[in-house]
Amino acid sequence: MPGIGLIGYGYWGPNLARAIAEVDAAALSAIADMSPAALERAGRRHPSARLLTDWRDLIADPAIDAVVISTPVSTHFDMALAALRAGKHVLVEKPITDNVFKASLLVEEAARRSLVLMVDHTFIYTGAVRKIKDLITDGSIGDVYCYDATRVNLGLLQKDVSVIWDLAVHDFAILDFLIEARPVAISASAAAFLPNSPETMAHLSIYFDDGAMAHLNVNWMSPVKIRQTLISGRQRMIIYDDMQNSEKIKVYDRGVDLAEGQDDDRERRVSYRMGEMWAPQISTKEALITEIEQFVHSIESAERPPSDGESGLRVVEMLAAATRSAALRGQPMELVDLRRAS
Amino acid sequence: MPGIGLIGYGYWGPNLARAIAEVDAAALSAIADMSPAALERAGRRHPSARLLTDWRDLIADPAIDAVVISTPVSTHFDMALAALRAGKHVLVEKPITDNVFKASLLVEEAARRSLVLMVDHTFIYTGAVRKIKDLITDGSIGDVYCYDATRVNLGLLQKDVSVIWDLAVHDFAILDFLIEARPVAISASAAAFLPNSPETMAHLSIYFDDGAMAHLNVNWMSPVKIRQTLISGRQRMIIYDDMQNSEKIKVYDRGVDLAEGQDDDRERRVSYRMGEMWAPQISTKEALITEIEQFVHSIESAERPPSDGESGLRVVEMLAAATRSAALRGQPMELVDLRRAS
Amino acid sequence: MPGIGLIGYGYWGPNLARAIAEVDAAALSAIADMSPAALERAGRRHPSARLLTDWRDLIADPAIDAVVISTPVSTHFDMALAALRAGKHVLVEKPITDNVFKASLLVEEAARRSLVLMVDHTFIYTGAVRKIKDLITDGSIGDVYCYDATRVNLGLLQKDVSVIWDLAVHDFAILDFLIEARPVAISASAAAFLPNSPETMAHLSIYFDDGAMAHLNVNWMSPVKIRQTLISGRQRMIIYDDMQNSEKIKVYDRGVDLAEGQDDDRERRVSYRMGEMWAPQISTKEALITEIEQFVHSIESAERPPSDGESGLRVVEMLAAATRSAALRGQPMELVDLRRAS
Amino acid sequence: MPGIGLIGYGYWGPNLARAIAEVDAAALSAIADMSPAALERAGRRHPSARLLTDWRDLIADPAIDAVVISTPVSTHFDMALAALRAGKHVLVEKPITDNVFKASLLVEEAARRSLVLMVDHTFIYTGAVRKIKDLITDGSIGDVYCYDATRVNLGLLQKDVSVIWDLAVHDFAILDFLIEARPVAISASAAAFLPNSPETMAHLSIYFDDGAMAHLNVNWMSPVKIRQTLISGRQRMIIYDDMQNSEKIKVYDRGVDLAEGQDDDRERRVSYRMGEMWAPQISTKEALITEIEQFVHSIESAERPPSDGESGLRVVEMLAAATRSAALRGQPMELVDLRRAS
Repeated sequence: MPGIGLIGYGYWGPNLARAIAEVDAAALSAIADMSPAALERAGRRHPSARLLTDWRDLIADPAIDAVVISTPVSTHFDMALAALRAGKHVLVEKPITDNVFKASLLVEEAARRSLVLMVDHTFIYTGAVRKIKDLITDGSIGDVYCYDATRVNLGLLQKDVSVIWDLAVHDFAILDFLIEARPVAISASAAAFLPNSPETMAHLSIYFDDGAMAHLNVNWMSPVKIRQTLISGRQRMIIYDDMQNSEKIKVYDRGVDLAEGQDDDRERRVSYRMGEMWAPQISTKEALITEIEQFVHSIESAERPPSDGESGLRVVEMLAAATRSAALRGQPMELVDLRRAS
Repeated sequence: MPGIGLIGYGYWGPNLARAIAEVDAAALSAIADMSPAALERAGRRHPSARLLTDWRDLIADPAIDAVVISTPVSTHFDMALAALRAGKHVLVEKPITDNVFKASLLVEEAARRSLVLMVDHTFIYTGAVRKIKDLITDGSIGDVYCYDATRVNLGLLQKDVSVIWDLAVHDFAILDFLIEARPVAISASAAAFLPNSPETMAHLSIYFDDGAMAHLNVNWMSPVKIRQTLISGRQRMIIYDDMQNSEKIKVYDRGVDLAEGQDDDRERRVSYRMGEMWAPQISTKEALITEIEQFVHSIESAERPPSDGESGLRVVEMLAAATRSAALRGQPMELVDLRRAS
Repeated sequence: MPGIGLIGYGYWGPNLARAIAEVDAAALSAIADMSPAALERAGRRHPSARLLTDWRDLIADPAIDAVVISTPVSTHFDMALAALRAGKHVLVEKPITDNVFKASLLVEEAARRSLVLMVDHTFIYTGAVRKIKDLITDGSIGDVYCYDATRVNLGLLQKDVSVIWDLAVHDFAILDFLIEARPVAISASAAAFLPNSPETMAHLSIYFDDGAMAHLNVNWMSPVKIRQTLISGRQRMIIYDDMQNSEKIKVYDRGVDLAEGQDDDRERRVSYRMGEMWAPQISTKEALITEIEQFVHSIESAERPPSDGESGLRVVEMLAAATRSAALRGQPMELVDLRRAS
Repeated sequence: MPGIGLIGYGYWGPNLARAIAEVDAAALSAIADMSPAALERAGRRHPSARLLTDWRDLIADPAIDAVVISTPVSTHFDMALAALRAGKHVLVEKPITDNVFKASLLVEEAARRSLVLMVDHTFIYTGAVRKIKDLITDGSIGDVYCYDATRVNLGLLQKDVSVIWDLAVHDFAILDFLIEARPVAISASAAAFLPNSPETMAHLSIYFDDGAMAHLNVNWMSPVKIRQTLISGRQRMIIYDDMQNSEKIKVYDRGVDLAEGQDDDRERRVSYRMGEMWAPQISTKEALITEIEQFVHSIESAERPPSDGESGLRVVEMLAAATRSAALRGQPMELVDLRRAS
């Protein structure tokens, strides 16, 4: 049973700590945070974990096999690199780093040492996204040609990170998990609607090599919270609404059929399918538990997790391209070929 | 009472004919359509109107003071120009023409002859859009910094016209009516998800000279119909949902307030207002009736209608820029300064 | 092709006239209304129909095979009886009469003369209710044990008729069509919230001989319009929401399963099924067309329509029992055995 | 600062314990539960509280000023009576007892000893119900004439308690808090749709002495969860939807106005108001915290809490009457005059 050390017990860290503690196959051995108050909270909840103020001590601990990093993104690279060099497996909060170069260095380091490098792309471990993946894989919805996501709410504004790096990261991770096609270019528009603020709203268009398109609408200044995604396949369409308590996923047997024939008969050849709708049952298992189980499984089996370091790198590449495009009012940015080697 | 002649009795023409007939201050004098079947339908509904197969005869009729044109967009220019040259006032279906140059010629011709040139931008005559205009004008929502519209459904695919010219035209017309700031650039992404088809989906970002942004999401291939727009002002935010039977407009007293102070205190200075919501009562008067009344009023008073020819020209300019940008994967297109001279 | 005469061209009559005219297998031969203005409107829409001010003339017309009655309920009995005695088939607006005795006389008269007596229980001819019937008949939802309907809106208040006779009549007709079990008693509560008004709100509980229960909530003074019904079967549950444009019917694979065993183990034996949801496709054919086709078919084939006179009688019996119970604050009223002889 | 002892650390007790611990003005002195496992959980969360297996020891503790009882309803009476006789103030979970006689004995005992007797009618301490009370008290909605609640979901079936005592109790408590008029009679229908089960569904109609009516729809076997209440006043109507994250309360400026005049002009005199809708801001303070603060305040000031013992007694009287009526298929049960003496 791998001993896991957690660095960072701030906003998200307590959730990771709880998940590690709940997974039978893992032990929460140590928690590091430079804040004494955070450490005290951690100690009350996890009395058997070693408490450390310096993350370097945690990485130096030989009883620790794996490190989970839940600190501000600017610190990810140093901590993850040190942990890998100390021979520890690493799970790091999203995004993996704040630039492409650092991410690729981490990927290389993990590969060289045959260590697991995994990113906390939480959404791909939810029952909903897993079910969508199944519906794509088993052919139920046909080839995917469109993914259109709206992820807006009021707050929580970040000081150092734009809405792209804060919210769009979720959809880039989901896209990377769901869509086999390769993204080739990104055009983005964004605006900062508060003074001295990073961008608070962005619209991102992603072009894929098979003609598919994705679009992400992220906004910190919407009066209502919306988490809604349309995923269109040639056979069926999915609406994934994460704000619903039940029926998060609705599969519509709808679309446009185009019969073969002469172009001037076109109107007669277009037919609309307005068929039934179906809301499959979805696993309600908590995503973080599934994710920690995957981390442990990958450590023990050397099987790549779906949100491995390369996935984290691809997501950062898209975040960076979107940020550059937004600075140029939508000027399209080509993506280099970082895709799955499989 | 002006005698009005209608050219085109196809999909939309019957609605215009009914509206003209219902407005007491106007008379439906003649209807022209080259289809005998259409003319027969027209005659049954409007027995007192003269029926003509050639639109040139309608324009030549001295009893006719004004011409309403409801034909395919490619024919708008010739008909409108001929009507203006014959001294008739003109109301033409949206978009006014299929390119900027033709639109500007019509505007010039109308100005030279002091005739009314008006475009059927129907939405700006609805109770909902009028109410939003009032809320902007009276300062209720503060300076508008964001307009974000979703206008998607399944079908009705057009053969010759892309989803931009078919659906986004509505939002460009609403934007032109609501927003005083000048649009300076457009970035658009689009895709055609059917073979030999114009674009079926598009995302358009519009930049304004005061930093405001608009975004339009238009799609013919959505399993559900959505007509939803967020309009964000510094004081309040509006959600306009045209699919609701009642409460089409909801005004939210919500937003982000930023107190003055040092930058490193920023988090303490950001506060979220999560105040009440309010759905004002909206006039249920039919938009087409209001529009025809405006047309008659402009003819009689020489007062410019809100959807005058220049508005039509600005809308076409934006449609053309969006189309060019979409062909270049979001490359931003600057808009020339065609704005209100006032 | 039977010649059909329509008596009454007021609120609902024009809809019936249009439906009769649209059905190829029927001819709208005559329309009677004592109002000259109504007759003039009728004549413009249906120029080939004979126009009469006295309904007795219509019934006396030998060219007329069948009579459709769309007049205030208090007049139904006299007109329907006269029509039957003149050998005409009869379709009468709901409710068939304003009391049980009159309804039973009509049923007897029609039986004696082998004429079709049918009631305009429109809802049972909708695609939605037909689909629910199919789902019950084919065993998809299992034995029905609960029907719970909410039918509320603001207005249209009636002067002479309570909300029970105006709105609950629809649900009684649907219940009579869907549920095979026999209703044995009714308890109702009602109140009139306007002075000198019939009841404006009512709650009705109907007990069936197999233990099933139905409940109807009808209200003319609700700020929002709701048309929602829960139909619970042992296997699945249906929610029928008539205000939805699409997905009017949702079938939930949900319920409570009780394993066999000792009573004190009960908690361990109860399990909740929270399975998938499914919205079947529903015919969008207009109910009135289906209804008129059924009327013609029954005339020609002597096959009983589902909303025959006996159904109308059972509905009136339930309306009368509910009204009596409401006057006694819920005192339960037993229903006599008027059910299907089959 | 009163020392509070909690009896019962099962389903609801932990919430009460947490609330007591969070309120600064109170101290959680002791927790009693006969289950060692429950006590161990309690000890981990509340290390400073005394842990007892026998509730009698808790009541005997002189350091304890007040007792909170969170045990099965059948035990409430003995524990509450013993606590009062030991001079302790008492807060007991709802319903106060399982019959009227026991409730009245507790009320008398508390009055004789001038001790606070309060019932955990949690909903009346929510921001939403408080806001509704304000809107009634300040005249915003006018005289209330109708309260119509739907409280349905799938599970949690109880073994010993019917859906009336489990779910309708919430609405009776809210009614008792909101409505000044006196309930005079109840008619109820109910059914048990599982073998050897208490009633799983019920419809309750409550008649008030001023002509107002309330209706409660409670059901453990609904495929979807609904918590929706219509509260109609002469001026405005409220829809209270507890499943909404925001806008739980919507106030509609809608209704029916009846001008004075002759009865035969009635139709012309009825007018419908379809005015604006308004969703006021609601306090998000947790109800249990407000409730415990009220308990402490009542102990220290001797000011009656809104959910005092007499309120608990009135609620039990209504529960008992509803249960009797349901056994007699809606036979109305008169309520004795237990109302506020004020």
